[in-house]
Amino acid sequence: MVSSSTLPNGFIESLESIVGADHVRTDDLSRDAYGVDALQRGRRPDIVVLPGRTTEVANIARACDQALVPLTARGAGTGYTGGAVPLAGGVVLSLERMNQIIEIDTASLLAIVEPNVVTADLQAAVEQLGLFYPPDPASLSRSVIGGNVAECAGGPRAFKYGTTKRYVLGLEAVLPTGQVIRTGGKSVKNVVGYDLTQLLVGSEGTLAIVTQVILRLIPRPPARATLRATFPSISRALEAVGTMVADGVVPAALELMDADCIRAIERHHGAETSSEVAAVLLIEVDGMPTSIIEEGERVTHACTAADGLITAASDETERDRLWSDRRDLSLVLRALAPRKINHDVVVPKGRILHLFEVIDRLKTVYRLPMPSFGHVGDGNIHVNILIDPADAEAMRRAEHAERQLFEEVVALDGSISGEHGVGFSKAQFLGLELSSETIALMRRLKQAFDPNGILNPGKIFPKTDKDADQVP
Amino acid sequence: MVSSSTLPNGFIESLESIVGADHVRTDDLSRDAYGVDALQRGRRPDIVVLPGRTTEVANIARACDQALVPLTARGAGTGYTGGAVPLAGGVVLSLERMNQIIEIDTASLLAIVEPNVVTADLQAAVEQLGLFYPPDPASLSRSVIGGNVAECAGGPRAFKYGTTKRYVLGLEAVLPTGQVIRTGGKSVKNVVGYDLTQLLVGSEGTLAIVTQVILRLIPRPPARATLRATFPSISRALEAVGTMVADGVVPAALELMDADCIRAIERHHGAETSSEVAAVLLIEVDGMPTSIIEEGERVTHACTAADGLITAASDETERDRLWSDRRDLSLVLRALAPRKINHDVVVPKGRILHLFEVIDRLKTVYRLPMPSFGHVGDGNIHVNILIDPADAEAMRRAEHAERQLFEEVVALDGSISGEHGVGFSKAQFLGLELSSETIALMRRLKQAFDPNGILNPGKIFPKTDKDADQVP
Repeated sequence: MVSSSTLPNGFIESLESIVGADHVRTDDLSRDAYGVDALQRGRRPDIVVLPGRTTEVANIARACDQALVPLTARGAGTGYTGGAVPLAGGVVLSLERMNQIIEIDTASLLAIVEPNVVTADLQAAVEQLGLFYPPDPASLSRSVIGGNVAECAGGPRAFKYGTTKRYVLGLEAVLPTGQVIRTGGKSVKNVVGYDLTQLLVGSEGTLAIVTQVILRLIPRPPARATLRATFPSISRALEAVGTMVADGVVPAALELMDADCIRAIERHHGAETSSEVAAVLLIEVDGMPTSIIEEGERVTHACTAADGLITAASDETERDRLWSDRRDLSLVLRALAPRKINHDVVVPKGRILHLFEVIDRLKTVYRLPMPSFGHVGDGNIHVNILIDPADAEAMRRAEHAERQLFEEVVALDGSISGEHGVGFSKAQFLGLELSSETIALMRRLKQAFDPNGILNPGKIFPKTDKDADQVP
Repeated sequence: MVSSSTLPNGFIESLESIVGADHVRTDDLSRDAYGVDALQRGRRPDIVVLPGRTTEVANIARACDQALVPLTARGAGTGYTGGAVPLAGGVVLSLERMNQIIEIDTASLLAIVEPNVVTADLQAAVEQLGLFYPPDPASLSRSVIGGNVAECAGGPRAFKYGTTKRYVLGLEAVLPTGQVIRTGGKSVKNVVGYDLTQLLVGSEGTLAIVTQVILRLIPRPPARATLRATFPSISRALEAVGTMVADGVVPAALELMDADCIRAIERHHGAETSSEVAAVLLIEVDGMPTSIIEEGERVTHACTAADGLITAASDETERDRLWSDRRDLSLVLRALAPRKINHDVVVPKGRILHLFEVIDRLKTVYRLPMPSFGHVGDGNIHVNILIDPADAEAMRRAEHAERQLFEEVVALDGSISGEHGVGFSKAQFLGLELSSETIALMRRLKQAFDPNGILNPGKIFPKTDKDADQVP
């Protein structure tokens, strides 16, 4: 692969001839802006290019492939693992001009969108028509569908409704070699050939560039109810979760906050601390108007039996208030330290208590604040290490804590990432979770899509000697 | 690849040394029995081998790969497209001895099973524990989980609950080169590396041999209700479906039978024909006890508004009676002609009426009975061509009708298979639905798993010159 200083002669002009000179940027401001995502560890591209349609994306890919110039696709840049960062320089292809909802088909319960439609905008558009697009990553007011597809975004509703992958019926995608493929389609079932759709979902922009997405929609649930329950311990809260699930309730959301998170929120509100509360559950049920009453009763029973104190939202304003604490949590925690390292580990549902025991132990051993919260129905807990990056000794402790967290999660039959993906920030840990045979197979799949290795280099896979240049 | 007459010297002995002589069969009776599946168009293997554990499967694969002997894995042989038929001879590897439920983990809502656990047995086992495994292919009393995974089996409950792929969390699989890989795991979310799990589900035994399956379970819905509604036309029945879905009802099952199916069932019962009934819907709702009452009311309202006459099952006996007509339908139709060619086409939900118009036209043009029924919530309709294979002229008409059906389904943005897969019986039609670029990419993926092309040759992909030997 060429390095950034050796772009072939005439390469920029060839991109300009594809998309027009207005849509090719090489100024420092653009290169800085497009060189970083929510991980906040970046590297500048040499060129930013803004195609307006699929054929332009295909021609850009072909040009990069022929010239062996690294090519990294970018949505809204809200990812937490550096998936959109052009580690090897080269071209960042921003899909921001491809941001239209092409069609919402109420009869077939599907939407066809360009990649840079904002998640929340799509949700609002389909809800107006009585339909529902469940995936709700925390970044949904800024994240885009293409990025959600690339990372397989989750969110609180995943326990009942599943993550992004459950809603992707079909894709139009550009291979790094410039061919345009269509996978899946408008049917909810399709078993013709290999499931390329699901292979591309979550592939973090390393296999192809998604240029159109066909999304499955469902009828909007007619009613919903939101409850908040406080518990004297994590274990009692988990007991309540087990009881309600055993009673046949599948909540639309089931969010847990630990004592450190609760204290942080209380301090943020300037409220007195309620030291007897060690865990909070935020529970939402949805469905028929009658069923949410019945499910609400079963939830209340389950929480009360575990010494939980329950509050139900009586209207949308109260619901918003209950949710705002959960939604603000990330910002509130971020304000507590110069850096918040956000992990999204996941364990089997039956092992969540073990995970919290691990977190407690790591806090003590490594003397680091690690407020944790997350999607307890999925066993997917966001473990946040709060730290000052200027404190080199503390950073070393954080690195040890991170590795040990990942090792223990894998020992609990869990995964080091349930939502954020590997990007480059977790690539060195891939071998903790996957065997060398599995990684070798994945590399062969990468090769089948991207023979010259130009697409989003340095992501997912641990570095080899060949990638020595790719340190951000 | 070696042909059947040129197995390498000592090859049978090498298999015997792996699994024991008792578990290697070369007698005619065994070779005949393991050479055919529900498609009823077979070819005998040279050897049948019955491994008891994963390491044996791996050693068999390695032996076949080294000797370039074709290897075809087999579950229960209930597939409709010849997926388990050893088209190129060689070895059939039957997984029948690997038939244990290893674990049902109620806390983590998952089951770990060997591939040859019968689908219905798993369902009964988990339901006893208050859990639910929704996928319900018609063959569930004989089909096995490994085969369900290989074909991505569906069934009536797929509208609400999705097909097999939605329940597969992880796999242990043997590559054709003999390596054992583990994909996914016990977590419901996992975005670490490429989604090999979903790539293997529905890959029809062409990429790897599944030796263990981790399945996601859900809480058993506390209650259910079953209704049957008769309509004066298909279009009124579809109108009722549209109304109930727009009203927020997601039935657990939503099955449609056309007039030909209704007449066949009536004749089977010796009942008078009800010529004014042109469509029947079988509708099941499940969930909280209160919600099934409310959903039942909404369903009744939707059906009545479309001139439907509705009957509700008042108890399990009546429920079984309502379902038995639907379940017996395949057998009843099979009795009407020497051969029933069963297609499982699927179209976007909004185009189901167009599909029935296509079927009506084909019936007239090609003068063939084509009773049709299926999973109307998914747009997945089983189109059955009833025919006598001895009538060569009629068989030619059936072939034309089949190709035209597939072409029109693809023109409706549908798929030629929603449940049964491609196997070898539909391989020649792959190019109707997938572009040459997409097929070429799929072949490269096949190559990444199976460099020597030993695993289940002749399936999915259209024949090339290399496969000239593979005509059954």
